[in-house]
Amino acid sequence: MIVTVTPNAALDVTYTVDSLVPDAVHRARDVRRRAGGKGVNVARVLHALGADVRAVVTAGGATGAEFAADLGAAGLPADLVPIDGETRRTTTVLSAVDGSVTLLNEPGPELSAAEWALLAERVRRREPEVLVCSGSLPPGAPPDGYARLLAGRTSVLDTSGAALLPGLAGRPAVVKPNLEELREVTGLDDPIAAAAELRKAGAGAVVVSLGADGLLAVTAAGTWHATPSKVLTGNSTGAGDAVVAALALGLCRREPWPEILRRAVALSGAAVLGPLAGDVDLAHYHRELAAVRVRPEGES
Amino acid sequence: MIVTVTPNAALDVTYTVDSLVPDAVHRARDVRRRAGGKGVNVARVLHALGADVRAVVTAGGATGAEFAADLGAAGLPADLVPIDGETRRTTTVLSAVDGSVTLLNEPGPELSAAEWALLAERVRRREPEVLVCSGSLPPGAPPDGYARLLAGRTSVLDTSGAALLPGLAGRPAVVKPNLEELREVTGLDDPIAAAAELRKAGAGAVVVSLGADGLLAVTAAGTWHATPSKVLTGNSTGAGDAVVAALALGLCRREPWPEILRRAVALSGAAVLGPLAGDVDLAHYHRELAAVRVRPEGES
Repeated sequence: MIVTVTPNAALDVTYTVDSLVPDAVHRARDVRRRAGGKGVNVARVLHALGADVRAVVTAGGATGAEFAADLGAAGLPADLVPIDGETRRTTTVLSAVDGSVTLLNEPGPELSAAEWALLAERVRRREPEVLVCSGSLPPGAPPDGYARLLAGRTSVLDTSGAALLPGLAGRPAVVKPNLEELREVTGLDDPIAAAAELRKAGAGAVVVSLGADGLLAVTAAGTWHATPSKVLTGNSTGAGDAVVAALALGLCRREPWPEILRRAVALSGAAVLGPLAGDVDLAHYHRELAAVRVRPEGES
Repeated sequence: MIVTVTPNAALDVTYTVDSLVPDAVHRARDVRRRAGGKGVNVARVLHALGADVRAVVTAGGATGAEFAADLGAAGLPADLVPIDGETRRTTTVLSAVDGSVTLLNEPGPELSAAEWALLAERVRRREPEVLVCSGSLPPGAPPDGYARLLAGRTSVLDTSGAALLPGLAGRPAVVKPNLEELREVTGLDDPIAAAAELRKAGAGAVVVSLGADGLLAVTAAGTWHATPSKVLTGNSTGAGDAVVAALALGLCRREPWPEILRRAVALSGAAVLGPLAGDVDLAHYHRELAAVRVRPEGES
């Protein structure tokens, strides 16, 4: 079983407006709310692919109740860790005219030590084959919280900023920063050099999302660049989570890197075409699987 | 007693970000939530001035429960009309760096005929000396809903778009469009000519908010232009509601127009300096009262 952990889960609210203009008044023409947070999106994608997956998430307050009800309605297997605080909201503003995607994220409620311990216990009890730790650590979580959850497991870590470096002590099989996160955490402009730094610090492999240019994977078995067959426009919010879903599935099935990357790029595009983060366009995924180009880095 | 009606009440959520940039990810450094909607803001201002005021509002669902709890905590006299739908949210994004104020408004839940009738009954029961109708009509409300509430009463109508023209049939003592709303509803660029059109259609007086340039009042007793002593920077969201509060208070006290406008401009500035819509900086209000300039239109 793949277990995803989202300690700072969120109710995702998506507003569609004509065009987001700072300093103006906007009336949302469409409002959608559903259970979100990166690990929940990863679990949704894996669930859509028929994989054996379970999401471990925090939930509290009225927003947590709506979050839990939505997970139930989606039929997504989940372990809810009840918390005293109110589940946060993240707001995605989609501009219908120019296609821009603007995110407004609340920091989230503070977790007590007991709440964190309960979260860790829920993860342990599931004995995951692959563990996925996604997103920010909430206020109150131990700074090395991800390292403790990951230690001794086959895992994917998808976080940034203050949670990323300490998390590497848990020796994740893969980390998945984007270019900006990688630069921020290493101070290096060259992604291959920066990825090597993260591997030295404990990451087994580093898969860097390059946006429309696909993925760069720096691994013990080699370095690859995987590119999609075409540039897609849509809601890019869940694209990174779809990549993580592919990485987790590949680890679980012990697939070779080129195959993992092919699925990761195809699922990422399928997520861009999905209306909300966590949705994937399976028809696009299956078509694109054969069209993704994977080449060892250095070849043109 | 002054009664404010907010049929499409909202929980106002205010996010402070460094700078709102379309197509980027933002982490809110500060999140505040409180009961809002234009009529609630008007009532807050009047309550802060010690006036006898009551807010009639709709509330439903978990968001409605939070809305109601916040009104109670503020000690604001209110009549809650329970509705089946979920109270909407309005989000204000304050940019700390450039001072921009961006609003994202949900359309709101649909009201049933019985819910609208209950709202009207609550208003009737209070026998208001002055009635204030504020904001948009929710889906399901009768298009002439405001006209029906206003008929036979001394009233202020502060709405726009589809609710404004039908509302004039209720013969409000004052309507308060801004320049853009006035242009949208009349098709005229000249605010004095446009205001005359609204008076012909049923408005006793038209007070046009000119932003930093103050207020233009077109009334049966004359036309005035009231300007603040200086341009203020802050959160302009509740400035219009503070103007409406001053108009309602002036009608209630049967004050002459120059005095009403002086208070309206001073309260508007005090609202810009308040941290959230509905807050006023009373020290600024009292200082500014003497400094506002009111002159008959045409004089320089």
